[in-house]
Order: sequence, then structure tokens, then C-alpha cells
Amino acid sequence: MKLATVAHGGRTTAAVLDGDRWRALPADDLSALLTTTETDRIANLAGAELPDATPVLPLPSPRKVVCCGLNYGDHITEMGRELPAHPTLFAKYADTLTGPEDDLLIPPGVDVDWEAELAVVVGAELYRADRGTAERAIAGYTVANDISVRDWQKRTLQWFQGKAWDRTTPLGPVVVTPDELDPVAGVEVICRVNGVERQRGNTSTLVFDAADLLAYISTFTVLRPGDLVLTGTPGGVGSGMNPPVFLAFGDLVETEIPGIGTLRNRFRRTDLRLTDFRHTDLRHTDSRS
Amino acid sequence: MKLATVAHGGRTTAAVLDGDRWRALPADDLSALLTTTETDRIANLAGAELPDATPVLPLPSPRKVVCCGLNYGDHITEMGRELPAHPTLFAKYADTLTGPEDDLLIPPGVDVDWEAELAVVVGAELYRADRGTAERAIAGYTVANDISVRDWQKRTLQWFQGKAWDRTTPLGPVVVTPDELDPVAGVEVICRVNGVERQRGNTSTLVFDAADLLAYISTFTVLRPGDLVLTGTPGGVGSGMNPPVFLAFGDLVETEIPGIGTLRNRFRRTDLRLTDFRHTDLRHTDSRS
Repeated sequence: MKLATVAHGGRTTAAVLDGDRWRALPADDLSALLTTTETDRIANLAGAELPDATPVLPLPSPRKVVCCGLNYGDHITEMGRELPAHPTLFAKYADTLTGPEDDLLIPPGVDVDWEAELAVVVGAELYRADRGTAERAIAGYTVANDISVRDWQKRTLQWFQGKAWDRTTPLGPVVVTPDELDPVAGVEVICRVNGVERQRGNTSTLVFDAADLLAYISTFTVLRPGDLVLTGTPGGVGSGMNPPVFLAFGDLVETEIPGIGTLRNRFRRTDLRLTDFRHTDLRHTDSRS
Repeated sequence: MKLATVAHGGRTTAAVLDGDRWRALPADDLSALLTTTETDRIANLAGAELPDATPVLPLPSPRKVVCCGLNYGDHITEMGRELPAHPTLFAKYADTLTGPEDDLLIPPGVDVDWEAELAVVVGAELYRADRGTAERAIAGYTVANDISVRDWQKRTLQWFQGKAWDRTTPLGPVVVTPDELDPVAGVEVICRVNGVERQRGNTSTLVFDAADLLAYISTFTVLRPGDLVLTGTPGGVGSGMNPPVFLAFGDLVETEIPGIGTLRNRFRRTDLRLTDFRHTDLRHTDSRS
């Protein structure tokens, strides 16, 4: 199955693809549907055809969005690093997500980079689960781009403040169930900027696959239906280029996983101010001198 | 005002302290109350007296719990480090929180440490706010202990997996409004383990105070009423001792901020299994050899 949240007639609804037509499912979006309905019951719930339906952000309200870094074996070994014994994890928010065709609105003066990723959608509650249980709890897979504000990411040792900018992680356009897509066998993860391919990795080289990550995360925190786990990005990010390249206003970022679909997001300037933090440093320096 | 969520007659309710009696407020808990009610209207809403009311986790459902590390100036300078130009931030979840007298249930085989902290409760929506706006949006202050699973925290560069174990961060017992408590002037933050004082810091030495942190975080993500920001811990954690000391099953952790109150949490063993991750390492090592 291909599942989505679609815009139709001024509202959104969960939907399932039937041939080339979307059919309504009984919830306002996939987050709500997965909270109330087991994945294997969804196919029976398909209702009316929805002409002119457009996929939007498929999962608008996950409670948890956990991301893995440093997870593509080929990229890690080409960088001369050891394969990690444990996944590197950090958090985003539901607020961090945005739709498959939405603009990425960012203020001027920050270094913005791309990170194409496979995202895993949780379909059942998991707590201290083993790998087999975690594997059976995967509702499906979708495409994400872990757009990163590199200068903020590197301000301190913790990446979080460069990774959790509101409405900067596009997700979608659809969620494909595991019977139709097998990332362990391998799917390609591709990023293009203004039509130029910058990343192409294969999920068969993931050090920690989807079931590994769900089991590992569930050791310390419960995962619930609709939660998301992003599996990391392959080589080819802008900050790894020499000299580093960052996104410029007007750039088009396309993120593709064949078998799922393509995100198309344009990077646009917002004039909402950045907080000037200099006064704070001065205040504390003064009080100490 | 001193606000709380209290257990009373088999349910919970938001409440305000009137002398030595709790009076009911019109919501099931403080998270719900702050979402619907501006802080300066709360005093007018006090209802019936609640005899035998007991404070429980005051904020059960924040959307965001953002934590700051390395924030006590005296501890940073005593360690010979430079004062940071930017706050080090990481995330916890609503699931990470637990009540002011709850046991901390942790499986055997991990290194658990204490971190007494002042927590800030957000009272109004903030996005790209300046310091003055952020200061006016503080609903109040409460006590937290950022209990940390040190070995998991140090498995990778990102602390998150050692900081987000479900039901390990006690919070409460009450939320004190800013007219009654001024952390910039200074309040003490104290941790005792089995009655022995291990930490005592003063919030007047915070590099980034509550308003700084709210303004800074609001630069990248919206903060909403009921969200929490933990302001960091002073010196004296167990992993900084020589040799390092961690909590043992049965230990009592007391976390106190005079003017707010004291958390009393006993560290107990749970036999819920830890995921054994060794198979994954082997699987990937094998496939590569």
C-alpha cells in the first residue's frame, strides 16, 4: 500500500492509493489513522475516490522524531572511520516537519545544508522490544530531508540546535508499507540541488537498519504509532565539499527514493528576525570582569 | 503563587496553594491549565479547597522539554574551561518526566547519575522572541533532576540517548510564579544522595539565564505554554568524582530549591530487559568481512 495525507476540498484526509486514484481513509491524517488503526486493517477501510487530491505532510503530529547520524557504512569507511558500535541519535519535533512540496523558510545569515534520508514510520507501540518485534511494528517508509543549519549545529557539541528548526525537514510524499519496499535488500536515497545530483546512497549499506534502530531506541523510550525514525544520510552533503557549499535562496532541493517518491522544496528567505545573542555574552562577560 | 497538579479523590486536578490549603483550578493538570489560561488570570479561578491533596508530576504533557548543559559559570571556570558563547542544548520528552516522589525504575547494568536543576515553565507562545518578551513569558519555576544514564550518554557524541530514559527526570513538587522567586538574584540548587549533600549551586552564576534560554531556543523552534526548559546543573555530579560514583538500587535522591520545594526519589531496579545489541554489531561485522 501507498498511504498519504492528502489535501482535498479545503481539508485533509488520510488516503490510500488505488491504481492511480486516492481513496479516503477514516481519519483527518495518517498520524490520526495510525493511532487508532492497526496497519493490516487499513486496506479494508478505503472509501470514496478523491479526485484532485494532493499529498501533504503525511505525519503532522508524531510525538517523537528520532534521527540517526553516521549510519551509512560506505560513507563511514570512505571517511576512514570505524563502524560505530552504537547508533548516534538526536531529536527533532513534529514542528520541524514540513510537506513534500513546501518552501523551506529560513532567515538570512545561516549555513543550510541537505541530508537525504529514509524515514521509518512506527505502526505499533514498542518498549524494550527485540529486533523481531521491532521489525513487525514498522508501518512503512517515507522520504525525508534532514535539512541542517550547520553553523548552529556546530556551535556546541550537541547537534540539536542545528537540527530542529521549525518547518525545515520535508517528509513524504507517501508512506509505502513494508510488503512493497525492502530497505535491507536496498533502496537508493538521492538528493539533487538545482538538478545536480549531490547524494546517492543505498540503504543496504546502513550500519543500523530500521528494525535495529526501533529496537535500540525502544530500550530507553516508548515508540508509538505514527512516530518517526530517520535513518541517516549518505555521503555528499554540502559541508563535506571543498570548499563547503550551502543552500542559497531560490535553490531547489529534490530528495528521492525510487519506489516511494520525490520531495521538491525550494529554499526561501524569511525576514523573521534571528535573536541577536551578542548582548547576552556581553552581559555575562561584564558581570565577571 | 504556588501552582501544582495534585492527586485528590482518585483523579488529578490543577491547584493553587492558598496559605497551607490547595484550591482547585479548572483543569485536570497544569499542562492543560496553561494551554487554556493566561498566567495572570489564574489567581481569579481558585475554587474549592482540596483536603488531602498531594502534588504529583506538575506538567504531564509538555510538547517540548529542552535542556541546557554546561551552564553554571562557577563550575565551568573551576574546570578551567572558557565560558561558552552559546548554550549547549538537547531534548527530553514528556515521557522522560516523573513525579516529585516517584521511584526511578532503571534496569541493572547502566551507570546512573544525578543532576539537580532549575526548570523554567513557559507561559505564552514564543517564536523568535527577544529577551524581554521571553522574560514576560515565564509562567514559573520548578525543580528537576536531569537523571542521566552516563554510559549511554557517552556511547556516541550525542548525549540524547543517555538523557531521555522514560520516567527518569523527576519534576515538581510545585511551580512558583516569578513574582515570588528570582533566579537572576539567585536561588540555591541542591542535590543530596542518601542524605549526603553532593551538589549546591546558585542560579546567579548561570551563564544563560531563563530569559536568555527561552529567547535563544525560540529562534529555531516555537515554545508554547506548558513547555519546559531545564537550565543545567552545578558541579558535584557522580561521574565527576574520583573514582566516579553512580546510583545504587535503594539510593534516595533529594533535589531541593529553597522557595520551591524538594523532590524525593528512590532509585529502584526494574527487570524489564535491556535490548542486547551485540547481535547487530556482529551481523554487520560479518557481512563486511
